[in-house]
Amino acid sequence: MNAALGGETDGSAAAVRRRIRCGELTGQTSGLAPGKVQGNVAILPADWADEFLRFCLQNPKPCPVLAVGRPGRPELPSLGEDIDIRSDVARYRVFERGREVASPTDISAYWREDLVTFVLGCSFSFEWALIEAGLRLRHIERGSVVPMYRTSIATEPTERLSGPMVVSMRPFRPADAIRAIAISNRFPGVHGAPVHIGIPASIGITDLDRPDFGERIEIRGDELPVFWACGVTPQAVIEKARPPFFISHFPGSMLITDLANAALAV
Amino acid sequence: MNAALGGETDGSAAAVRRRIRCGELTGQTSGLAPGKVQGNVAILPADWADEFLRFCLQNPKPCPVLAVGRPGRPELPSLGEDIDIRSDVARYRVFERGREVASPTDISAYWREDLVTFVLGCSFSFEWALIEAGLRLRHIERGSVVPMYRTSIATEPTERLSGPMVVSMRPFRPADAIRAIAISNRFPGVHGAPVHIGIPASIGITDLDRPDFGERIEIRGDELPVFWACGVTPQAVIEKARPPFFISHFPGSMLITDLANAALAV
Repeated sequence: MNAALGGETDGSAAAVRRRIRCGELTGQTSGLAPGKVQGNVAILPADWADEFLRFCLQNPKPCPVLAVGRPGRPELPSLGEDIDIRSDVARYRVFERGREVASPTDISAYWREDLVTFVLGCSFSFEWALIEAGLRLRHIERGSVVPMYRTSIATEPTERLSGPMVVSMRPFRPADAIRAIAISNRFPGVHGAPVHIGIPASIGITDLDRPDFGERIEIRGDELPVFWACGVTPQAVIEKARPPFFISHFPGSMLITDLANAALAV
Repeated sequence: MNAALGGETDGSAAAVRRRIRCGELTGQTSGLAPGKVQGNVAILPADWADEFLRFCLQNPKPCPVLAVGRPGRPELPSLGEDIDIRSDVARYRVFERGREVASPTDISAYWREDLVTFVLGCSFSFEWALIEAGLRLRHIERGSVVPMYRTSIATEPTERLSGPMVVSMRPFRPADAIRAIAISNRFPGVHGAPVHIGIPASIGITDLDRPDFGERIEIRGDELPVFWACGVTPQAVIEKARPPFFISHFPGSMLITDLANAALAV
């Protein structure tokens, strides 16, 4: 993991953000600043922000809110004193009316006085907790992207925001699945306990080998598929709603915060 | 449930024990003294007691120790000030060299100065927590005894005590199974989280319709069987070891304590 930081010995969140800010790191953030919370980013105009916040509070499993910025302000002091959301994510996606128009490494040129930043919890944190507890995650060992699926579970809609819950899947033997449920349940701020286990057809998943996002992963005969609510859900819901303007992090390039994953446990 | 108490308005644990003590209640204790912890009882000679305690501590899921009495003493002050274990269980089983020789409602005639009483947590407590959380338990709704199975999971043995873990099974839809896992995980003193879910053959159960104890229960197509470590385990282990003398509660006739189930949550 430290190879990604080159010769840098200071792997602190602030040090990693500094390298991202100056354009030295522009890729995936998995494994950077070990033990620190990484977050999904959604930036919306103020006239959509209140509704999105309501949507998140109505759907806390796929949309666990870690922080909300003030309108027009790029700071997120509760996540890190120095954070400037315009430069501190490695890569962004900029959408206009639902269409992606750019994927820059800095959004200063797109910043507006009416933009509100949301940072949502991410699966990296509960995966950290599972690994700390000695559980093995096959997609990480294989170096692949976790498989994700659209489900038949509807999110609780607002006026303009609605759509299916997207879930990520990790296979476990039953006793490990039970431990994974108990452990992730302690982290409601980062998706919490799974939403499903074992009978994918019950949530509208017909073929585990064909995920809607990410890559397929082997499930052995003595394993059950375990499904967690996924941060792709709000992203998909917003894209579907086609707001006039919207910025998100680029998949896999999360905001690295100063919060310790361990501090999120309840 | 209060019908079982006849006209008695005082359903407190002490009041129920009083009626058991005088022989007025001699049957099942399920539903009596609502919200109070009920316990499995095992009474052994001192030269077996230390080993049994070690066995329990090595196998906390099937054998969660709530209290241990002093040798020769019938009191259990941590569970209820007035408890006299010789009279306060509705019915007992008395074993000599592994053979049941009596099933009395009072064991004063069998009491000896070398006997040590163990009270172990019981599934009633976590079932209470599941019901409080709004989950439905089919065997309770059906009025049947929960199905129990010998498994291929070995307990951690001591010199003379060994044998397979016995589990109880409750069917749930997957989302409810996840809640049941998260809730029961908060009650390690009463078996805690399940030991298995979903693939019974993995733990040596070949036919769910033929439980080793209790009664079969329907599992619907959209449900998973969920398996908890069961207090029958230590009972079976002791019976197999054939100590010269052993007393247990009669199945379903537990010791009613003053502890609140809710107080066992961690």
